[in-house]
Amino acid sequence: MAGRPDAKPYYAVIFTSEQTADTAGYEAMAERMVELAAQQPGFLGIESARSGLGITVSYWRDVASIAAWRQHVEHLAAQRLGRERWYQRFRLRIARVEQDWSFERPTS
Amino acid sequence: MAGRPDAKPYYAVIFTSEQTADTAGYEAMAERMVELAAQQPGFLGIESARSGLGITVSYWRDVASIAAWRQHVEHLAAQRLGRERWYQRFRLRIARVEQDWSFERPTS
Repeated sequence: MAGRPDAKPYYAVIFTSEQTADTAGYEAMAERMVELAAQQPGFLGIESARSGLGITVSYWRDVASIAAWRQHVEHLAAQRLGRERWYQRFRLRIARVEQDWSFERPTS
Repeated sequence: MAGRPDAKPYYAVIFTSEQTADTAGYEAMAERMVELAAQQPGFLGIESARSGLGITVSYWRDVASIAAWRQHVEHLAAQRLGRERWYQRFRLRIARVEQDWSFERPTS
């Protein structure tokens, strides 16, 4: 959650998911996908949290970067495993970030 | 995480946060804000997860709905307490949702 504002507009991919009981292999794959995403052109950052519902938001320079990442061969394999094993349901949204601001507590 | 697609475009408010050690009162306030947000015009839904980093994404019909909610008197008080007590840092993004799709595991 870097405080640096990125040049706008940029894009957010909002991925919300509920997992199945079969989580074998999930964590390793999720870590690999973060590592791989970070190497893609146009990648700006990624943030994740899970407490029952999982939310991952990744940030990209433009929709072309997102489209390329969605078609990455290793990512396609992960997506297939997600649908076959790990996800009960998910929802994916692509959104254009128009405003962005941050707060940081002053050090006292 | 309803599967129903909302009419596009609509808007997402992506709020990512790290908490301070002082979490007294936080949960009750967070619950109250979800309850209150759901009563506002233009509200479409809200999703939250926290594991260290917290991510809350709320969905709105348009930017006017978001602006009105940000100025709601009870919400303003919560925002002030957030900055004074509960948040080490946060980042707020307003994004226009342009694509939206979902997957639901077939019942076997």
